[in-house]
Amino acid sequence: MPFPDLVHPALGAYRSAVEIPADFSTFWAETLGEARGIGGAVHIEPVETTLKLVEAFDVTFPGFGGHPVKGWLVLPKNRDGKLPLVVQFIGYGGGRSFPHELLHWAASGYAYFRMDTRGQGSSWSMGATADPIGSTSSIPGVMTKGILDRNDYYYRRLFTDGVRAVDMLLAQDFVDPERVAVCGGSQGGGIALAVAGIDSRVKAVMPDVPFLCDFPRAVRTAGRDPYLEIVRYLAQHRDKSAKVFETLRYFDGVNFARQSKAAALFSVALMDDICPPSTVYGAYQAFAGTDKTIVEYEFNNHEGGGPFQDREQMKWLGERFGMR
Amino acid sequence: MPFPDLVHPALGAYRSAVEIPADFSTFWAETLGEARGIGGAVHIEPVETTLKLVEAFDVTFPGFGGHPVKGWLVLPKNRDGKLPLVVQFIGYGGGRSFPHELLHWAASGYAYFRMDTRGQGSSWSMGATADPIGSTSSIPGVMTKGILDRNDYYYRRLFTDGVRAVDMLLAQDFVDPERVAVCGGSQGGGIALAVAGIDSRVKAVMPDVPFLCDFPRAVRTAGRDPYLEIVRYLAQHRDKSAKVFETLRYFDGVNFARQSKAAALFSVALMDDICPPSTVYGAYQAFAGTDKTIVEYEFNNHEGGGPFQDREQMKWLGERFGMR
Amino acid sequence: MPFPDLVHPALGAYRSAVEIPADFSTFWAETLGEARGIGGAVHIEPVETTLKLVEAFDVTFPGFGGHPVKGWLVLPKNRDGKLPLVVQFIGYGGGRSFPHELLHWAASGYAYFRMDTRGQGSSWSMGATADPIGSTSSIPGVMTKGILDRNDYYYRRLFTDGVRAVDMLLAQDFVDPERVAVCGGSQGGGIALAVAGIDSRVKAVMPDVPFLCDFPRAVRTAGRDPYLEIVRYLAQHRDKSAKVFETLRYFDGVNFARQSKAAALFSVALMDDICPPSTVYGAYQAFAGTDKTIVEYEFNNHEGGGPFQDREQMKWLGERFGMR
Amino acid sequence: MPFPDLVHPALGAYRSAVEIPADFSTFWAETLGEARGIGGAVHIEPVETTLKLVEAFDVTFPGFGGHPVKGWLVLPKNRDGKLPLVVQFIGYGGGRSFPHELLHWAASGYAYFRMDTRGQGSSWSMGATADPIGSTSSIPGVMTKGILDRNDYYYRRLFTDGVRAVDMLLAQDFVDPERVAVCGGSQGGGIALAVAGIDSRVKAVMPDVPFLCDFPRAVRTAGRDPYLEIVRYLAQHRDKSAKVFETLRYFDGVNFARQSKAAALFSVALMDDICPPSTVYGAYQAFAGTDKTIVEYEFNNHEGGGPFQDREQMKWLGERFGMR
Amino acid sequence: MPFPDLVHPALGAYRSAVEIPADFSTFWAETLGEARGIGGAVHIEPVETTLKLVEAFDVTFPGFGGHPVKGWLVLPKNRDGKLPLVVQFIGYGGGRSFPHELLHWAASGYAYFRMDTRGQGSSWSMGATADPIGSTSSIPGVMTKGILDRNDYYYRRLFTDGVRAVDMLLAQDFVDPERVAVCGGSQGGGIALAVAGIDSRVKAVMPDVPFLCDFPRAVRTAGRDPYLEIVRYLAQHRDKSAKVFETLRYFDGVNFARQSKAAALFSVALMDDICPPSTVYGAYQAFAGTDKTIVEYEFNNHEGGGPFQDREQMKWLGERFGMR
Amino acid sequence: MPFPDLVHPALGAYRSAVEIPADFSTFWAETLGEARGIGGAVHIEPVETTLKLVEAFDVTFPGFGGHPVKGWLVLPKNRDGKLPLVVQFIGYGGGRSFPHELLHWAASGYAYFRMDTRGQGSSWSMGATADPIGSTSSIPGVMTKGILDRNDYYYRRLFTDGVRAVDMLLAQDFVDPERVAVCGGSQGGGIALAVAGIDSRVKAVMPDVPFLCDFPRAVRTAGRDPYLEIVRYLAQHRDKSAKVFETLRYFDGVNFARQSKAAALFSVALMDDICPPSTVYGAYQAFAGTDKTIVEYEFNNHEGGGPFQDREQMKWLGERFGMR
Repeated sequence: MPFPDLVHPALGAYRSAVEIPADFSTFWAETLGEARGIGGAVHIEPVETTLKLVEAFDVTFPGFGGHPVKGWLVLPKNRDGKLPLVVQFIGYGGGRSFPHELLHWAASGYAYFRMDTRGQGSSWSMGATADPIGSTSSIPGVMTKGILDRNDYYYRRLFTDGVRAVDMLLAQDFVDPERVAVCGGSQGGGIALAVAGIDSRVKAVMPDVPFLCDFPRAVRTAGRDPYLEIVRYLAQHRDKSAKVFETLRYFDGVNFARQSKAAALFSVALMDDICPPSTVYGAYQAFAGTDKTIVEYEFNNHEGGGPFQDREQMKWLGERFGMR
Repeated sequence: MPFPDLVHPALGAYRSAVEIPADFSTFWAETLGEARGIGGAVHIEPVETTLKLVEAFDVTFPGFGGHPVKGWLVLPKNRDGKLPLVVQFIGYGGGRSFPHELLHWAASGYAYFRMDTRGQGSSWSMGATADPIGSTSSIPGVMTKGILDRNDYYYRRLFTDGVRAVDMLLAQDFVDPERVAVCGGSQGGGIALAVAGIDSRVKAVMPDVPFLCDFPRAVRTAGRDPYLEIVRYLAQHRDKSAKVFETLRYFDGVNFARQSKAAALFSVALMDDICPPSTVYGAYQAFAGTDKTIVEYEFNNHEGGGPFQDREQMKWLGERFGMR
Repeated sequence: MPFPDLVHPALGAYRSAVEIPADFSTFWAETLGEARGIGGAVHIEPVETTLKLVEAFDVTFPGFGGHPVKGWLVLPKNRDGKLPLVVQFIGYGGGRSFPHELLHWAASGYAYFRMDTRGQGSSWSMGATADPIGSTSSIPGVMTKGILDRNDYYYRRLFTDGVRAVDMLLAQDFVDPERVAVCGGSQGGGIALAVAGIDSRVKAVMPDVPFLCDFPRAVRTAGRDPYLEIVRYLAQHRDKSAKVFETLRYFDGVNFARQSKAAALFSVALMDDICPPSTVYGAYQAFAGTDKTIVEYEFNNHEGGGPFQDREQMKWLGERFGMR
Repeated sequence: MPFPDLVHPALGAYRSAVEIPADFSTFWAETLGEARGIGGAVHIEPVETTLKLVEAFDVTFPGFGGHPVKGWLVLPKNRDGKLPLVVQFIGYGGGRSFPHELLHWAASGYAYFRMDTRGQGSSWSMGATADPIGSTSSIPGVMTKGILDRNDYYYRRLFTDGVRAVDMLLAQDFVDPERVAVCGGSQGGGIALAVAGIDSRVKAVMPDVPFLCDFPRAVRTAGRDPYLEIVRYLAQHRDKSAKVFETLRYFDGVNFARQSKAAALFSVALMDDICPPSTVYGAYQAFAGTDKTIVEYEFNNHEGGGPFQDREQMKWLGERFGMR
Repeated sequence: MPFPDLVHPALGAYRSAVEIPADFSTFWAETLGEARGIGGAVHIEPVETTLKLVEAFDVTFPGFGGHPVKGWLVLPKNRDGKLPLVVQFIGYGGGRSFPHELLHWAASGYAYFRMDTRGQGSSWSMGATADPIGSTSSIPGVMTKGILDRNDYYYRRLFTDGVRAVDMLLAQDFVDPERVAVCGGSQGGGIALAVAGIDSRVKAVMPDVPFLCDFPRAVRTAGRDPYLEIVRYLAQHRDKSAKVFETLRYFDGVNFARQSKAAALFSVALMDDICPPSTVYGAYQAFAGTDKTIVEYEFNNHEGGGPFQDREQMKWLGERFGMR
Repeated sequence: MPFPDLVHPALGAYRSAVEIPADFSTFWAETLGEARGIGGAVHIEPVETTLKLVEAFDVTFPGFGGHPVKGWLVLPKNRDGKLPLVVQFIGYGGGRSFPHELLHWAASGYAYFRMDTRGQGSSWSMGATADPIGSTSSIPGVMTKGILDRNDYYYRRLFTDGVRAVDMLLAQDFVDPERVAVCGGSQGGGIALAVAGIDSRVKAVMPDVPFLCDFPRAVRTAGRDPYLEIVRYLAQHRDKSAKVFETLRYFDGVNFARQSKAAALFSVALMDDICPPSTVYGAYQAFAGTDKTIVEYEFNNHEGGGPFQDREQMKWLGERFGMR
């Protein structure tokens, strides 16, 4: 059957039952504090391309643990004044690839930064950032890397990288600190939600078919990877289910959504069996900000709105950031 | 086994056995003459987008039979003098989608035109061009539409559209007629080869993992659609094999390659089971132009070189068209 | 799970929510009138076979637009008086194949006509009828050919062909006009329902696991093609959902069922994931005729009752048409 | 790759290496003698159907061990003199189904008998004949039933049934003993070859894409069941390979082909991955009769020639049996 | 979706609707009486292995019909006094394999017997026991062998073998008749339930993810073989559904559960789509003994608890049988 | 086709073209020296089980980098004198699971140690050992973890763990240093070959269908994971092929085979599409020891010889280590 999850009206009425840990904010504040305390060097090197209308830079900045994280920065060549900023995070398994590949934000007048994903970047696009931190036993894939301890969990490092990217960018003089947006599809949407939940400098968040939301329902509803990595892990580690879900509470998009006051433009696909729509609604309904919208694509699976949603985003963000 | 076809050295030594019909050039000259005789109106309408560095236009031009064919034209906003031109054709099942999606040619200073594909545009990206011509019995898909008669065959119409797109663009004052390139991946590469083989105004052709080459071998070697549409057709129409291959000779990329003197940059993927590498080599080895190069991707299937090949193309074309 | 759809008692209680357009009858009356106005030639040529007990004829008749449509007519060799008539339509992708293949109606004393399906006949059996009318952008397959306008939609042409076949046959002196039946499986059942809904000369209709019924539910319930062609189309044409369902109302078996007073023998398979059983029940429950029966096959998928249902039909129709 | 086996010219040059056991003929003569010695009752009961041009009979006859075997006999209603006979055997997993389903032989003036297959008849059509003989350990399916001893092997019983069917039919006064043909597709073709190899009263044999030929190559070449049942059996019974192939020599279509002097019309499909074409050629090239023909279908898998081959057979057999 | 069946609380609340035949006990008493009346020879031969801590014996005993059934008996080498007994039955398609493969019961001080499964033993492990009894038409596999008559059904023979194995073992002087346990996974669990339901000498039963329970629900809920063999059979034998379910009542684990007073340790996997969890709960809830426990594995499919459940069993049985 | 690779005689004649790096021995000597220099604590804790004939111990020992690595040690309870030792390594994705699961070595009188695999142990059995070392970008799975630098590559750590396990065991007084064997299937066989190639104290090696052999051929021949992880990595990292194969030379089983003088019992499966048979033969033919044997399983895929090969090993090793 094409719909793998709830449909309306049950879908719209669904609320996530994820509980937020009492020390959720403390955990993230300490994590951030630690990463900022370690610090590290920032490198922003111009890259030679054939592009004439924009400039591209190869960026290295210190993420979690001070580990070097890569990204591409693309700016309109002719610019004056401070630019609004769009930071994009990447879907599961992908990497930053090349700067010429996604130009519509820079071509619309934004400073655009695409952050690489540590230890991924080999499945469908190429990355260049290592994840130099150990893990407990895990199935292949990162979903269960360090999942038995919230301090070891892979996404603690990756979400921290995301906030540290914002730190790095806000230190640049071409960025307007009042116009900072984050976005991404799937895992990228999950990271965007986390960064918007942790860091109140983010003024707009645009998660598309976000992953990493409402874990207890997601792992019991998804029909395909990567949520099922957790199912396979628990199929072997039959005695670790409580521990795993205790860790995941600290990384759940629903809980990040509860913290954010940014403007938000979500999208959801009703035939999505990778990120089931109820889990996206779980985050959307929990989102604390009042300027929030969700765009539905009834007949799409995880590809979601694709270029239709790009256009929605360009229009929506332009209105909020005063772009004409 | 990962390699679905010949490997080196047999791959490099392979030459296609496709025979060119005696009236090949006549057939295409007459086809073109007929389409040009019908003529039709050209509309180039600016479209409103958020893009600031480029201008986008919604183009309608008369293709085969004078039928209206759509495309997106994207130009650098600040331009002076005549621009080199890149015309891109689209892979099987796709459509022109939206103008914001592929900006690297315009951002590199080219006039860029993406031609819609008649009667496709519904499988993986959206198109807006009908194919208003009938067909004999066919399996779902266009590969066998009208395949029993060279005059009815679907690709007669589509290839003609491609040349007529060049006609339309060369009539615009912003285009430098000495710097015309065509490109495309898969079916788009097949169209590019056909247009370069029919129309000597094309100075450079960049086919990636091209489809529609060396049909007799391709339908007996491919492991996945769309070549297998022809296999399934012949599995039912068990008495029409000779007729089908007679038609296909007039549309074979190998024969178009034999006509073209343009500079050529091919790419091929050695694990490609949609467009088997020997069929790509078949066209490459037959290519008549002397400035020809082929880039190999050993471990790729039909996705080919992806952004690596984009970079190759931007550099290679820039050198030939005097872009920095 | 073996059952892809509702089971009893929910299945029996289900009623389709499809709304019939106010101008439904007008639309079809005008369509028919137009086709009849165009007219065209009928050819009935004897074919040479080894068959001794029956005679076979290769028939060409004018369908929609006067286009030539093919079919096989098979008659008992020794016959006297007027014969009852069975017209069979063919499932998706098939063609009329050869006259020797389905002989049980002629061997039971009926005039039997198998109508070819325009533009199909290449997937699982061979056809010989073209569909010479254009289409807007469509995915491979006919389900979305012209779907943006009820006048362009493929099934307008095909259903008209079906009524025109009855026109042609009723003009033959060997046919008893009081004993006309239509039948077919899957798409053939959908055509049979349409013809019985448009044309009151049809006295009996026998749709097996009929396709093309209750579109809004069907495209959201089916697990396999061809209904999913529409899903894939809408996945790309994300802004055309309302338009598509508006067109489909004019071609919905539920609405044709509401028009027919013929005797009806339906069959349905409860594990059918191509034509979900609720969509068949949707048509059955809406069927206006009072002499109606439905045979259920609990453990079958789309193959339905197969030869068991053939036997049901021969017995059921024989009783109604006074065959012994 | 579409071709799963040898292609020409290697295909045409291939000769099977199967060795015929010295006591092959003795084994079968003794087997037949034993079955005939047991004897058993024959029942030929008219069945009530709606069919008017033919008469159908439900037949039970004694097969191997005197076990009751079922079949349908269909005769033209108006007949005079003795009729030529066609006996058809059924593909793997099928049963005799209903008499109305395959009428083209009776409609062409033949006595037609379709023999049920003991212990099958439940996968794709319904049968009514048990296999009341035990087996050694076997994987699901009959391919390995009793495979460790030629006397226990399932096909010893089934092939004997086939000859005993001929015995029963030749005892009927409506059958012309000089015009006896056997046919069948896949397993049915294998049985037909066996019966023609054992019983010289068979004057014509028409095996389509025959199964059960050239076992040593077949189990190492086939891509799908049922040959792979033997592969799976040997994957567990790792020490029984020699024993298994020793048994199979007594049941190999190549060896039966070496014994037959009948006229033969084979068909083969070059993309067949169930009965690889080289194994069919293995039997064809070994066939001892001199009036032999093979029809090739290049682009078909195991469905082979379908209705095209029906037509070939009706024409070919009619010429040999003086029908017109 | 990962859960193919009911989840809690509906799962825990589910009760099977299977009705027990009035003559259920009589049927089995007569079956047993008949098998015991036939009797037959027992052979217990030491086998040579490299194992030093245990002794292994190749056992042949008379099962249903007196047919020879094989098994491995493994005993601790140093033993004194009578040993508690564990009899294990095997999952669908498997055989007894070799004695060295499953040693944890013998290594824990038990007499351990693994009974071979007649006519299986060729799919995933090797067996050595034939099923020398005929069958009516059946699909490949044993699920439908003789299914039209309770006296012919395959499982009548196999369940009888299981009780006869207990008969044979209780006749050995090293077995303590007060400490007899049966166990098995999947089909093995189904046999264990049957034996415990028929034979009150069994004091403990440990079925893991048992098969052959709650047939009417199971064949309508399972997503994979072997329950679907029955679905495929009924898809062809469309008129035999009532007869089939009448037979199955005599072999349903729910009905055996209703007869047993043994201590019971069940396990169930909530993502099991071979033996759906509701069918396991159906048997568990019906189990008549009062010392019963069920262990749930939420994230497992049919592999169930694996070594986790081994550990549960060793501890649970040790407590009940006074092992330290 | 069942055979995914070379068959005889080409298979037997195949020799690997892998070149051994000049500093191969140095690299491993330095790696070992470094690990031994770091040292670390060994813990051998008895575990409570129900097993009475053997004793089980939970072992932690320092592996590469001194990281704690786990394993199970199982000894016959009644033992006197020094025991021969069998160390087993585990296949890809698995972990050490529980001590009761594989008892045939201990039951045959050996000291048996099953080493856990760092950072795996979550796919098909449970492990308990982390891999606390970073990696460069990699696809999910360990095959490409650190693959751009021989010092970072995952298998440098794992192979070192294997030798350090032998170090730890040889320090125990119950082990006879003259009778040390290593074994394993698939990845476990690859580790066994590596340990036997590095450490001359190993007197016997028993690799079953070994993985990690003849990488350049394996990644171009395998049909399924995990070799294809490298293919997918190179499909994205299109410019890193030379670097990757340079690293892999240091970890290739062919090169380890060239160093070992142990007695060797290999097994290979001719239908294996995970570890293609030519790659196993590549290692076998290169193996330097003179007492070497290979057992072939013609009709098996990667499951190989299973319990048949267990029996071969027990017999073969017993002869060499003087077990009766």
